[in-house]
Amino acid sequence: MSKVVALMSMSLDGYVADPDDGVDEVFDWYFSGDVEVVTPSRAFTFRVSPPSAEHLKGLMAAVGAMLTGRRTFDRANGWEGRHPFDVPAFVVTRRVPEGWPRPGSTVRFVTDGIESAVAQAKAAAAPKFVGVHGAQTIQQCLDAGLLDEIHVDLAAVLLGKGVPLFDHLANTPVALGNPTVVAGVGVTHLRYAVQR
Amino acid sequence: MSKVVALMSMSLDGYVADPDDGVDEVFDWYFSGDVEVVTPSRAFTFRVSPPSAEHLKGLMAAVGAMLTGRRTFDRANGWEGRHPFDVPAFVVTRRVPEGWPRPGSTVRFVTDGIESAVAQAKAAAAPKFVGVHGAQTIQQCLDAGLLDEIHVDLAAVLLGKGVPLFDHLANTPVALGNPTVVAGVGVTHLRYAVQR
Repeated sequence: MSKVVALMSMSLDGYVADPDDGVDEVFDWYFSGDVEVVTPSRAFTFRVSPPSAEHLKGLMAAVGAMLTGRRTFDRANGWEGRHPFDVPAFVVTRRVPEGWPRPGSTVRFVTDGIESAVAQAKAAAAPKFVGVHGAQTIQQCLDAGLLDEIHVDLAAVLLGKGVPLFDHLANTPVALGNPTVVAGVGVTHLRYAVQR
Repeated sequence: MSKVVALMSMSLDGYVADPDDGVDEVFDWYFSGDVEVVTPSRAFTFRVSPPSAEHLKGLMAAVGAMLTGRRTFDRANGWEGRHPFDVPAFVVTRRVPEGWPRPGSTVRFVTDGIESAVAQAKAAAAPKFVGVHGAQTIQQCLDAGLLDEIHVDLAAVLLGKGVPLFDHLANTPVALGNPTVVAGVGVTHLRYAVQR
């Protein structure tokens, strides 16, 4: 069965973006090293520390589909039709955006809710995992009991304010397992199992 | 020069207590192992994993004084006059509480503000470090540029709501150094330098 795994960079105080939706601080670790990591789509090149490079390569090889919300899709300008991980991307939205779906694009739209989106993404990803990106979509998955793991790239910064990763959870507390830990430069990669 | 170091257990989503001030979830790791660690005061015995035991023993040996706010003092019932780490404890407060200071107690009260409290605690702690406990006091130290390090015991739980460790910082973002990382059971011990 394909796992459903949250993937986010987060500040030590729990924010995934500053109040203006800026991610420079929490994404700083993507450009804090000497090892080049190119996304499967070849659209992005990161320069990270050796442990973060191993972490990123392992992650990108293990993701079979992505699941995001409409906000992430819009902010990324629809990834120009092709998610950087070069896997099908499922976008949960009320309405399919104008001009989409585009011919040749691997971006799909799901208008009948999070459970349907997760089911479709799992089918596309199997046997690899579904990566879930975006605070609201991650929280929807958690609330619906659909999230198996949380991968947090914990950035070495306090933002003080901004967009929290976890701020409207319906069922708390959520117990997590012991994380696997990878120490990078400016970041600590933590991977928790969600205990249900 | 004596360092000033924040010491707190925090949930992955940034809370040090639940909405009722309960700390069972974030303190769970203190009772999740087989290795007994007795506080220097002998008032408390923890049962932690081997890496957390090493972490705790090193910490308790390195603390020369504690600094807290009035709320922490009240909630701990004044530690019965003797902080568990068996070092002088400086309490920042507007008024000295009734019945205090007590004869033979190592708890001191500072009524002229955070800078004075830090200076007094450093003098008492040297050459060991000053441990700062309590969200509000930690934030006061950060805002005043008086904090050197943040030790967070990151508990493997999402609380969703409660008392945030960092919610009213005056000067953000606060850049942190690369943490030292100790992986425990139900907890990850992270030690960051505050970059000024």
